[in-house]
Amino acid sequence: MKHFANRAGGFRPSAVRDVFEVAMRPGIISLAGGNPDLDLLPLDELGAMSARIIEKEGLEVLQYGSGAGLEELAELVCEFMKSEGSSPALEEIQMTAGSQMGLDLATKLFVNPGDVILAEGPTYTGALGTFEGYEADVRQVALDGDGLDPAAVREAIKAIQSEGKEVKFLYTIPNFQNPTGVTLSDDRREELTRICRELDVLIVEDNPYGQLSFDGLRHRSLHSYDPENVLYLGSFSKVFSPGVRVGWMVAPERVRKFLQIAGEAVTICPSVLSQRLVLGFMAEGMWEPHTRRTAALYKERCEAVLAACEKYMPEGTTWTTPSGGFFTWLTLPEGGKYADAADALAPAIENGVVFVPGSAFFETVDGKNPGANQLRIAFSSVEPTVLEEGVKRLAEVL
Amino acid sequence: MKHFANRAGGFRPSAVRDVFEVAMRPGIISLAGGNPDLDLLPLDELGAMSARIIEKEGLEVLQYGSGAGLEELAELVCEFMKSEGSSPALEEIQMTAGSQMGLDLATKLFVNPGDVILAEGPTYTGALGTFEGYEADVRQVALDGDGLDPAAVREAIKAIQSEGKEVKFLYTIPNFQNPTGVTLSDDRREELTRICRELDVLIVEDNPYGQLSFDGLRHRSLHSYDPENVLYLGSFSKVFSPGVRVGWMVAPERVRKFLQIAGEAVTICPSVLSQRLVLGFMAEGMWEPHTRRTAALYKERCEAVLAACEKYMPEGTTWTTPSGGFFTWLTLPEGGKYADAADALAPAIENGVVFVPGSAFFETVDGKNPGANQLRIAFSSVEPTVLEEGVKRLAEVL
Repeated sequence: MKHFANRAGGFRPSAVRDVFEVAMRPGIISLAGGNPDLDLLPLDELGAMSARIIEKEGLEVLQYGSGAGLEELAELVCEFMKSEGSSPALEEIQMTAGSQMGLDLATKLFVNPGDVILAEGPTYTGALGTFEGYEADVRQVALDGDGLDPAAVREAIKAIQSEGKEVKFLYTIPNFQNPTGVTLSDDRREELTRICRELDVLIVEDNPYGQLSFDGLRHRSLHSYDPENVLYLGSFSKVFSPGVRVGWMVAPERVRKFLQIAGEAVTICPSVLSQRLVLGFMAEGMWEPHTRRTAALYKERCEAVLAACEKYMPEGTTWTTPSGGFFTWLTLPEGGKYADAADALAPAIENGVVFVPGSAFFETVDGKNPGANQLRIAFSSVEPTVLEEGVKRLAEVL
Repeated sequence: MKHFANRAGGFRPSAVRDVFEVAMRPGIISLAGGNPDLDLLPLDELGAMSARIIEKEGLEVLQYGSGAGLEELAELVCEFMKSEGSSPALEEIQMTAGSQMGLDLATKLFVNPGDVILAEGPTYTGALGTFEGYEADVRQVALDGDGLDPAAVREAIKAIQSEGKEVKFLYTIPNFQNPTGVTLSDDRREELTRICRELDVLIVEDNPYGQLSFDGLRHRSLHSYDPENVLYLGSFSKVFSPGVRVGWMVAPERVRKFLQIAGEAVTICPSVLSQRLVLGFMAEGMWEPHTRRTAALYKERCEAVLAACEKYMPEGTTWTTPSGGFFTWLTLPEGGKYADAADALAPAIENGVVFVPGSAFFETVDGKNPGANQLRIAFSSVEPTVLEEGVKRLAEVL
């Protein structure tokens, strides 16, 4: 171990990892995983498409590709961004081997050890893992039912800056947030981007779930308010396939060029075959209908979870009401059986259900974890009747 | 720029990048690219295989996969490693999104800013890029016709250690090296691993070309001599497809676990679909025959280049005689027209040929680049008659 770099201390096995292993056991109902449901994918069509692509374009798609990514796909991404109010140039699109890689590259490019990253509290566990690997000082700002409160963000940034520390960026998932399911209200978006601009803090906007709106409403991206100060991370993992590993970033061109060089040093290029499959999926008209159909599926599942919570959860338990995405977020009642949801995990597994404890989505502050009394329920990949049974089992334990 | 991390200074555009752009121009013969030739791939079979995989296993291969990689593929990798004298356990295999990612992870896990990485002089440009991104202090040890001289490596390590610096690892490409085509002689392998073990320096063994031997000989890996002190990087890019982005690492289990966590923070998992295609390619018996056929192709091309060098190059020019791989390495005569091959690049392009100047494969030492009077010729993806014409055009300029 003595040869390891300092940052290796950030690469520690997480509790979430163990949870996901348990989730694979037969008989266990998993409310843990954030996997998309792939059952509605037109697999025969996709298979035939992949055969055509390899037979006709094999010499290109199996060869090294551009470090910036497939230009035709970047063009469709530019089109897509318009649906959220942005109009980036082609030179501002960087394709990635999944949105996680976008997070890695943004952190790599901007964060020195000890620099502050401001994130939502709670936030995506995988982001915390990436940030820790760069020895960042992660500070979290509490969410309310409308997402980040711009005034709280301003206050947090000012407090950190007055410590003499630099806040390198604000990391936010504005739509159907992981893990809370909460969405940043539209009237906060302009203010939030304005404050970050004023205080000279970059925004990293992560939007894997934005298309999975239950009511079909599409929110404007933060990027659309200030494209010079927002790095946008897009993903095909939740609306097509996480297994192909394709995502994108939007960044001002001068930053985008650095992202490309940094990305080439990691993977040379994103899988060309994967990018070509995503391009086909989008260009051949499968994307929109598949997104609509899966959003309807997730809506139904969300409703099943909320109804089951209503029916089974102990009095005083509260939860969020998502308008899209994969997750709802429970807060245990004060004075209830468990002060720390992590303590309920083993009994829950014993009772045939698994979830992710809230503490996984927070950094510890002064030795305490702010999310101990909370937990995440993922409803994306489980049938409604099974979800109801899962929530019932969890409620029995709680 | 003021917000960038210190390491961003390492992500600078390289001369090589410009060369590759020129190489795409019509009419230019490229001796620059290190692309494998894909013409012999059975594209129809591969297309049909991909269709079968997506139709029958779509719900798995399009979903998130294990961060360690596809177990069935790791099992075949274990088998393969035996052909080079190793017998790693399944728990020691980490699949990657290409071997470049293995390099990134090894550097991420071991190297603090300022730590020394010892590399061959010259070495793979992409490795230098990765190392610079981690602010490593790269020192290079000159190669001779038999690869690294163990005595020179010992001397270099001792000198650096006596500066009070830690040598984090020795990075070496023992077989048909990029850029020289040189192979580490078998009798040096044991000594080199022994010296590194004695001086407590890890070895990172990069072996993308080892299977592409012109005479069918397979060299023992350094890993086979000391699996506890050698991280092995394997690649499917040169013998199957670089476009799918799949490689592997072999590391002691305790290190492998850290590599997995670090890897998950970058890409969650390698493309599952890509891994499954590679698995099919190997398991359905396409790998060995394809490797044999392409190695024969590269041998013919290598012979064409060497014959053309003999015929056209100015007196005093020397070059290596590779026994496998993609490259030969030229040293310009002292007192010739160009002291720096980079100065010959523009006239060469003018004359319809492009190559990579030797300086791209070295770090500058005391303001001088040790490889200025050298250049790389890649013969892997060009027909023999075109190669001859390319060498002729280059010789005319030189």
